[in-house]
Amino acid sequence: MTDYILSLQCPDQPGIVRSLAQGLVLADANILESAQFSDPITGLFCMRVRFESPQASVEALLGQLMTQLAAFDPVLNLRPARQLRRALVMVSKHNHCLVDLLYRREISELAIEMPLIVSNHPDLGPLAKHHGVPYYYIPVTPDSKADAEAQLRSLIAEYEIDVVVLARYMQVLSESFAEDYYGRIINIHHSFLPGFKGANPYLRAYERGVKMIGATAHFVTQALDEGPIIEQDVIRVSHNKTPEELVALGRDVERLVLARAVMLYAADRLQISGARTVIFD
Amino acid sequence: MTDYILSLQCPDQPGIVRSLAQGLVLADANILESAQFSDPITGLFCMRVRFESPQASVEALLGQLMTQLAAFDPVLNLRPARQLRRALVMVSKHNHCLVDLLYRREISELAIEMPLIVSNHPDLGPLAKHHGVPYYYIPVTPDSKADAEAQLRSLIAEYEIDVVVLARYMQVLSESFAEDYYGRIINIHHSFLPGFKGANPYLRAYERGVKMIGATAHFVTQALDEGPIIEQDVIRVSHNKTPEELVALGRDVERLVLARAVMLYAADRLQISGARTVIFD
Amino acid sequence: MTDYILSLQCPDQPGIVRSLAQGLVLADANILESAQFSDPITGLFCMRVRFESPQASVEALLGQLMTQLAAFDPVLNLRPARQLRRALVMVSKHNHCLVDLLYRREISELAIEMPLIVSNHPDLGPLAKHHGVPYYYIPVTPDSKADAEAQLRSLIAEYEIDVVVLARYMQVLSESFAEDYYGRIINIHHSFLPGFKGANPYLRAYERGVKMIGATAHFVTQALDEGPIIEQDVIRVSHNKTPEELVALGRDVERLVLARAVMLYAADRLQISGARTVIFD
Amino acid sequence: MTDYILSLQCPDQPGIVRSLAQGLVLADANILESAQFSDPITGLFCMRVRFESPQASVEALLGQLMTQLAAFDPVLNLRPARQLRRALVMVSKHNHCLVDLLYRREISELAIEMPLIVSNHPDLGPLAKHHGVPYYYIPVTPDSKADAEAQLRSLIAEYEIDVVVLARYMQVLSESFAEDYYGRIINIHHSFLPGFKGANPYLRAYERGVKMIGATAHFVTQALDEGPIIEQDVIRVSHNKTPEELVALGRDVERLVLARAVMLYAADRLQISGARTVIFD
Repeated sequence: MTDYILSLQCPDQPGIVRSLAQGLVLADANILESAQFSDPITGLFCMRVRFESPQASVEALLGQLMTQLAAFDPVLNLRPARQLRRALVMVSKHNHCLVDLLYRREISELAIEMPLIVSNHPDLGPLAKHHGVPYYYIPVTPDSKADAEAQLRSLIAEYEIDVVVLARYMQVLSESFAEDYYGRIINIHHSFLPGFKGANPYLRAYERGVKMIGATAHFVTQALDEGPIIEQDVIRVSHNKTPEELVALGRDVERLVLARAVMLYAADRLQISGARTVIFD
Repeated sequence: MTDYILSLQCPDQPGIVRSLAQGLVLADANILESAQFSDPITGLFCMRVRFESPQASVEALLGQLMTQLAAFDPVLNLRPARQLRRALVMVSKHNHCLVDLLYRREISELAIEMPLIVSNHPDLGPLAKHHGVPYYYIPVTPDSKADAEAQLRSLIAEYEIDVVVLARYMQVLSESFAEDYYGRIINIHHSFLPGFKGANPYLRAYERGVKMIGATAHFVTQALDEGPIIEQDVIRVSHNKTPEELVALGRDVERLVLARAVMLYAADRLQISGARTVIFD
Repeated sequence: MTDYILSLQCPDQPGIVRSLAQGLVLADANILESAQFSDPITGLFCMRVRFESPQASVEALLGQLMTQLAAFDPVLNLRPARQLRRALVMVSKHNHCLVDLLYRREISELAIEMPLIVSNHPDLGPLAKHHGVPYYYIPVTPDSKADAEAQLRSLIAEYEIDVVVLARYMQVLSESFAEDYYGRIINIHHSFLPGFKGANPYLRAYERGVKMIGATAHFVTQALDEGPIIEQDVIRVSHNKTPEELVALGRDVERLVLARAVMLYAADRLQISGARTVIFD
Repeated sequence: MTDYILSLQCPDQPGIVRSLAQGLVLADANILESAQFSDPITGLFCMRVRFESPQASVEALLGQLMTQLAAFDPVLNLRPARQLRRALVMVSKHNHCLVDLLYRREISELAIEMPLIVSNHPDLGPLAKHHGVPYYYIPVTPDSKADAEAQLRSLIAEYEIDVVVLARYMQVLSESFAEDYYGRIINIHHSFLPGFKGANPYLRAYERGVKMIGATAHFVTQALDEGPIIEQDVIRVSHNKTPEELVALGRDVERLVLARAVMLYAADRLQISGARTVIFD
């Protein structure tokens, strides 16, 4: 028996579940988990099913399911659970999110392939090396930005990357890049969005005197810090914390929130529906 | 079209979802929400479906679904969403949970019928009266306890009560009562179970120096404070709070936790599977 | 012995604590609680001391302390703990915050006088009446706004009001009113500021797809939703909640956050230092 | 100017603050932070003051302060802030807490010396070596336990250790060891105490069906998992998490809670008063 994860999206209408259930029965499938959501804003029906089946061929199985579901014109994604998603992680100089992701991967808490790390600084190369992950140093200046993104596109293709994870990567990607890889770039922003978009959120949080600081993992879109939110969390702070202490407290929230987002992605528990995400946790 | 809520439990096995989906299609049903869970401990398959159907007869619809599902020997519960659950609320002298439930019902946040309130003290009678809910004062002494429970059983039958809500009712119900109404009595305990079972949890929390206090809503079983947990929450406290301040802070957690539990029950989002609850939120 | 609460603010410099301690010893005072903060942004030293003293005259005691502290040119506020702060509560049509404040006052959890309630709608009059609090219905139209605020000023003076609590009052006060009563008006905003300032925060939170919604209690200043923040809290939400459900979940956060802010004020645990608040909890 | 941290405990009585303030003025000290607490259970007055003074000799300064405070018979602890506390960290096979502490120390978030790591297993030796910390492998069997603790006592003396941090060390220390190092051993327990004391808390939490799991950092005493609690936190879980997933979620809480406890200790923000801790955060 092979363990599969199926993701489905199509316009909401009666009969989808029956047709899918019919297809799964024909594939001798045993449903292990199933979750669904009808989005009233977009009119999309979103579903995630984990099942086991004696059918070993993904293509054959996908064909069978598509046949049953053809009337609904669905977007289907099917993969054996053991075939991991592949992530390219981008960093600048802060290492806390990368250290955390590497650790979770090492103890098999985060089931993802991480074939390479890309950075606009050389600083975190030794860390990558220590964990046996190739490190590409691609500096970015206003002049070299287009070249840098071209290199990035090549690497994404070469390494068959599913998702780009911006683990405190301090460069803004171009609009065309964001557009071309829509739904495939996850960023961690160090504030509770939509508050404190843009630069220096902790300093601004300090000056504003908020009583909680937070972090937000979101998909990257052309508009800065405006993409669909995947996960958020906050931590209580008080007036006696300095900006530096907020940064330190924030690190804990950032790495937790980013890790949760990447783990949701790694398990296909994450779908985009319009401007929002649907989380099947 | 009538809006229905269906709850289903049966031993987990392949084909349940297909058969149910088939039954729903035959009933011209349109699924609005669906959630399911296969419990590895009990081997139970648990499911909740909200759907709309032109079929106006609950009995006929239930018959149709049962026909499709007969092979699985399921426990089915079907009701029109507009037909509210009926709660009997029991209190002693503390009024914060009752005040909260009455308020939520009044602003239609809590969709439940509350045909009567029962108490072992007369104190909260005026509050009940102000909200137009009949109040039964049934004193309980060691000698009168059996009689009191007999009265309670009569009231439950007479008022066609679905659920008994112990909103800080300070008497322990008998084992036979707990057994006969298994799965139909919700209690709020003023600690984060399994810590501080039994009496005076706040004082014991104070003396133990915990850094968070909590509350737990659970189903009542024969063993005190051991029934399936429905909802829990906590609040941070510090060393400078007195026992009285813990009680005050705890009130907020208690009423929130109990309200959430009753709202889950009112929407049939709550199932028992062995010693645990399954929450379809 | 009389129980006193002293609040002090002055430019930070060495010797303040010694001089105050000296003054307290001269007053035969016994310190029960003491907390202090040196604000690096404003350069202010902020302090709160609760103590008991045989000195029954506030004026005499204040004079003694001022003599000791004269060199520091402090702003001192001294009151017997039993002499409660006086709050004027303003509402529109939503009653959840008012219901909550009235309840906490009734069970003596909130130690504050509430001599009157003011509203721009007549709707909540019966609620006020039921709790024995005079209710002033002062309608506000663009034309009558100046008159309405003049009436409000009269009532504040007449009832010797310390603090105005905007418990979901849906009118914006004028800049001159905000300026004249700086530090004396507490508002509850139904979002986690600085996110979703202004109108309809829940709908915007829904459309933005945030994973937590929140509420913020803050002092009112001339700039809308920009005053010093007193307290904030959040609650986790998921993609399957409707805007109406966000509003319902938000009510719980709003009333808790506002209640905590008013309780901090009632106990003089709240000071303003520049754009931020200092909380001595 | 030298930056100092002073901790003080003595029976509560009037005049302590004045005498201390007097002593600080004589030392030309400038108070940077000050916090205090009168414990109604133990009758102890607890205080922490951070100040700067031109006096460079700790002994001289301590003498001056003791002279002023002699009448109160206080326990005083004074150290220059730059002279870090020294921690011996003990582990078994789980590395998540150790990895976290090492990381925080490396980025200077955790201001503590860590001159050695001790383990009853050799497994984490390479990790220690990578971070340049000597690793002592001291196996523990029922027969060798006394010898192992004797070795531990030698190491504590030799390395002038202030605090022993049990970062998921899976052996129970002897009662005499716990007694001799009272207030100097911090343990992380992987449950929200007092719930699930002892072994296998996650499995028991799973079987009990709790809706939140937690972790507790506490001082070790002779009674297992009964010592004064330093810090606790929880995370929400649902019925669909397996015991292994609870363990994974719990790791995040454990490492955060232990890190916070050690950071409180490292900054002398932590005092014991009877069965509880006082946190000056």
